Amino acid sequence: MIFNFIPKEFNFFDLFEKQIDCAIEAAVHLKVVVGTGSVDEESLRKMQDIEHKGDEAAHLIIDLLDKSFITPFDREDIHSLAKEMDDIADTINTIVNRLKVYNVTGIDKNLVEFANIIEESVRTLAIAVKGMRNIKHSKSVADACVEVNRLENVGDDLRDRVLAELFEKEKNDPIKVIKMKEIYQDSETVLDICEDVAHLVGSILVKQA
Amino acid sequence: MIFNFIPKEFNFFDLFEKQIDCAIEAAVHLKVVVGTGSVDEESLRKMQDIEHKGDEAAHLIIDLLDKSFITPFDREDIHSLAKEMDDIADTINTIVNRLKVYNVTGIDKNLVEFANIIEESVRTLAIAVKGMRNIKHSKSVADACVEVNRLENVGDDLRDRVLAELFEKEKNDPIKVIKMKEIYQDSETVLDICEDVAHLVGSILVKQA
Amino acid sequence: MIFNFIPKEFNFFDLFEKQIDCAIEAAVHLKVVVGTGSVDEESLRKMQDIEHKGDEAAHLIIDLLDKSFITPFDREDIHSLAKEMDDIADTINTIVNRLKVYNVTGIDKNLVEFANIIEESVRTLAIAVKGMRNIKHSKSVADACVEVNRLENVGDDLRDRVLAELFEKEKNDPIKVIKMKEIYQDSETVLDICEDVAHLVGSILVKQA
Repeated sequence: MIFNFIPKEFNFFDLFEKQIDCAIEAAVHLKVVVGTGSVDEESLRKMQDIEHKGDEAAHLIIDLLDKSFITPFDREDIHSLAKEMDDIADTINTIVNRLKVYNVTGIDKNLVEFANIIEESVRTLAIAVKGMRNIKHSKSVADACVEVNRLENVGDDLRDRVLAELFEKEKNDPIKVIKMKEIYQDSETVLDICEDVAHLVGSILVKQA
Repeated sequence: MIFNFIPKEFNFFDLFEKQIDCAIEAAVHLKVVVGTGSVDEESLRKMQDIEHKGDEAAHLIIDLLDKSFITPFDREDIHSLAKEMDDIADTINTIVNRLKVYNVTGIDKNLVEFANIIEESVRTLAIAVKGMRNIKHSKSVADACVEVNRLENVGDDLRDRVLAELFEKEKNDPIKVIKMKEIYQDSETVLDICEDVAHLVGSILVKQA
Repeated sequence: MIFNFIPKEFNFFDLFEKQIDCAIEAAVHLKVVVGTGSVDEESLRKMQDIEHKGDEAAHLIIDLLDKSFITPFDREDIHSLAKEMDDIADTINTIVNRLKVYNVTGIDKNLVEFANIIEESVRTLAIAVKGMRNIKHSKSVADACVEVNRLENVGDDLRDRVLAELFEKEKNDPIKVIKMKEIYQDSETVLDICEDVAHLVGSILVKQA
């Protein structure tokens, strides 16, 4: 057989799954880091390895897109999905990096709470992303997207509560306020990105229905 | 008659008008809040209601886009316009939320000035957005876009002035600096978004000329 | 001859070169400013002039895009490229503006280091952008893109180092921390934008190969 008739498009789903698996790995690693209460060189390197693996998957998707005539859904949606998913591990990497650079030590129960919600959101998002392969899964994909949305709202409330608490408790330590405000806001950003990915997956689903 | 021949595209204009009306409502509410000098639960809820109404309009536009074969202008421009307009009420909501979370009380004349410019910008933008329905209005649309641009420059100067003043006046209160710096910068961001929307409306107009 | 058969597409390359030349001018000016250790009205005005010139080039590209049936590469890529290149001078302008507004004076060796890397990155990027005219230059374009990527990593490490140093050295001057943290982070953002432009140029090259 001279021509390869296996539809290349299936590779997109493999690569999206690789991306979301990296996001899960990043979320799990964040939970370990904030549960330990300190970031050492090894755990920093591990985080960077996860992020690079995610970057690779994103690049492969863009390459495949440039080479493919037929794609499983809109080229532009594929591009956005690859980019947004990449942002999940990127932003988690930023959080871990800031903890190290700002020399934040000790277990912060608010950060632990954020890490738990982030892990839950990313795992739920994985159900949606992996469900895209098969239109029969559209109900469970839709349910997962709703849940990711709900978790984003939970994250908004958490951010408001921890920021109010931070300004109240640390009013004599502005340096601490500067550090933790950024880290809390980045944590909430991860949930925003998960919501954006869920919206994108939802709209791809609608177009195919 | 079995088929519905009424062009669906007109609905897009209705929805864009709904969005810009929400942005006006948000701007008016911001003015009330900063004029009162405190945010209570009721005014926080009202702000969220306005934002949700805007979100709904944005979602309806995206849904309509997915279902429409013919659109009044480029699909991508419709998508961007819906997203950017949504960001106006979103960012105003963020400002009101931060005033509450950071427990900022008392009337701040700089914030009052920002709120006035924001209202003026959003109302001017509404002329541009509503004028898109009819190519005959292109002169007034273009004039409105120029004015929104001008107001963004006024906002830039105001932000520079109030930030310089903040760092000078509150050099012994870094916590206050952290809070107000963020709120002033978000205020200027609203004017940036209005300018982006005006650019988009302007370029849509040019393509149709 | 009634019709103009000269392909309009060549103008795009002229305008992209104008944009990247503005970015170089901005980077050189930043180096002068941080090397002097103070921003006066004249140098502020000069920076704004450079930024306006860049804005003009960006607007001309968008106008040309709206009027052109044939473009040298994807319309969307042209749009993104014009926007991202514009962001380089914009962000450098923000840095110079903040130095003035926050009244930062004195030579800061970390800022000098950032300005040097930024100039190197923008000059390297210019090789890539100018090389797009001719497919024969694809090797040097690709090399330049790799180098811009490398410089972004150098910038990441520099930012981490200077932020850690800032929090350590200025722990009793939170106001200074607030000011310099923003300026350092904006400096690193310039390198991020250069990397984004390099990616875009790289992917345009791949599509044409």
